Amino acid sequence: MEQQTSKELLKQIHAYIESLPYSHEPKGLYDPIEYVLGLGGKRLRPVLMLLAYNLFKEDVQAIFSQAAAIETYHNFTLLHDDLMDKADMRRGKPTVHKKWDENTAILSGDAMLILSFQFMMQGCPVEYTHQVMDIFSRTALEVCDGQQWDMEFESREDVTVDEYMEMIRLKTSVLLAGALKIGAVLGGASEKDAQLLYDFGIQIGLAFQLQDDYLDVYGDPLVFGKNIGGDILCNKKTFMLITALEKSDDKTRASLQEWLKAEDYVPAQKIEAVTAIYNKVGLQNICRDKINEYYHEGMRLLKEVNVEEEYKKNLSDFVMSLMERNL
Amino acid sequence: MEQQTSKELLKQIHAYIESLPYSHEPKGLYDPIEYVLGLGGKRLRPVLMLLAYNLFKEDVQAIFSQAAAIETYHNFTLLHDDLMDKADMRRGKPTVHKKWDENTAILSGDAMLILSFQFMMQGCPVEYTHQVMDIFSRTALEVCDGQQWDMEFESREDVTVDEYMEMIRLKTSVLLAGALKIGAVLGGASEKDAQLLYDFGIQIGLAFQLQDDYLDVYGDPLVFGKNIGGDILCNKKTFMLITALEKSDDKTRASLQEWLKAEDYVPAQKIEAVTAIYNKVGLQNICRDKINEYYHEGMRLLKEVNVEEEYKKNLSDFVMSLMERNL
Repeated sequence: MEQQTSKELLKQIHAYIESLPYSHEPKGLYDPIEYVLGLGGKRLRPVLMLLAYNLFKEDVQAIFSQAAAIETYHNFTLLHDDLMDKADMRRGKPTVHKKWDENTAILSGDAMLILSFQFMMQGCPVEYTHQVMDIFSRTALEVCDGQQWDMEFESREDVTVDEYMEMIRLKTSVLLAGALKIGAVLGGASEKDAQLLYDFGIQIGLAFQLQDDYLDVYGDPLVFGKNIGGDILCNKKTFMLITALEKSDDKTRASLQEWLKAEDYVPAQKIEAVTAIYNKVGLQNICRDKINEYYHEGMRLLKEVNVEEEYKKNLSDFVMSLMERNL
Repeated sequence: MEQQTSKELLKQIHAYIESLPYSHEPKGLYDPIEYVLGLGGKRLRPVLMLLAYNLFKEDVQAIFSQAAAIETYHNFTLLHDDLMDKADMRRGKPTVHKKWDENTAILSGDAMLILSFQFMMQGCPVEYTHQVMDIFSRTALEVCDGQQWDMEFESREDVTVDEYMEMIRLKTSVLLAGALKIGAVLGGASEKDAQLLYDFGIQIGLAFQLQDDYLDVYGDPLVFGKNIGGDILCNKKTFMLITALEKSDDKTRASLQEWLKAEDYVPAQKIEAVTAIYNKVGLQNICRDKINEYYHEGMRLLKEVNVEEEYKKNLSDFVMSLMERNL
């Protein structure tokens, strides 16, 4: 069976998404959708879906609509999350509520969500429709649950590591897992293999998010693509901060809490001071170990999928490339 | 074949919607959904769907999930529209963004939209799934198009009656039409009958919306359930206002435009003056005639549906009761 690399698949799905006929009336509704989908990004979710499908079947173009659906859904969440978070920029460009206005962001997002369901149905073989739509709608709801927890955590001081991991499972992992499972189901995978790929996606998603948390503190700004310390400056309750609060001694915790409450400070000083506390607590290793744990558990699950080992190479290479990018 | 009246169907679908297990974690996301769906309303769309189904089949409970889906979708649009319109009250209760906050309104609305797709799939017979989901997603997108036009019309001075009719077709009619068509498809109707019921819904929806515009000016406040003149006070571009601007002579139009631009006025005086202009233009009859035209065209289409005339009685009685309520 012919296998395609993530790069080959990315090129095709990118072209497919670009070719989607978004541009129609009313322009005030569809221009922002075209804009958001045109901002690019790694197309991680559709590529994962196609790689999973390609473990079982060759004709990846048969599920381009489903792959575009998952990307459209993901971009819908970015659009509405940016509005709720009042974020001004996304991928170096103004967000929709900044470039247009808040009502445009609400309604264009709604239309994108509907389009994602439309694309997911389009050309979906009848024998898989119920299963695919069940996975998709359950996953989509869970992503909303995750966003809700994330917002609620902002005003809470007692978030535990377990709660945080559950939040990122919902907000980040389930969509990667759902993409993989839908790809597998459409590829005709057994229920067991489809579930293994889902579970693989959960572990990999947790590893990715922890890596993001880690890189905000210890990343190379040139490689990371964002400024270092952004999470620290806005007191974001990441794995790093929650673990530091849990593991530090009373004196260190008090000092960390001072920085969280501080209103007048030099940004670079806050980043330096908080990073010093993280170092003292040993967070660099704690977080690396945790990332490796999830990553290896994911790879173990992938090994169990009942297809020839060599077929899995593109998928494992892709995930590895995303993990090694910065660590 | 056993036929049920709209009242019997309303009671059942109301109970079904009340029994839906919305209440789960995170409460901050699902409590507002329960709240919105608990506000009641006429459940017009699900009742229409069940009545259409009941033209062809008896076991209406087989499509309660689809009926709940269309109501959930409709309530999602109310939730997000109220946010976009900054409306404080809905059915005599505070709107979600007032009772909670804007982010809650955005995210709970998103979750409702996803739930509506989930309910629409649930228990949908495989042979109808693609058709039902196609109608639903196309309709849902068209409702967004309608809302977009409605918002764009607010800042335009040159909206024509044709443009207005197209906007209310999208914003109001297609969802009634879609509900009827989905009911018909699930009932096993022929393509022709399903389309006739759709077209019937379009005409009836236009009649309903024009009636709403009419009643805002000429309604009995006790029966109408809203204050009279609300549209006049906020310069809403209804059929009444657009037609008055089109049909009045230069002097009357100038006087109407003065009132539209006026900033300091006694509300009752503005309502009285604008109503006097409407009377002068003969709008009471123009609008009534237009309503009757759409209503009778709808009824003509219903007559063409290929089922025994007596089966249609519940559906035509229901629509008639909604029309006669106030005219």
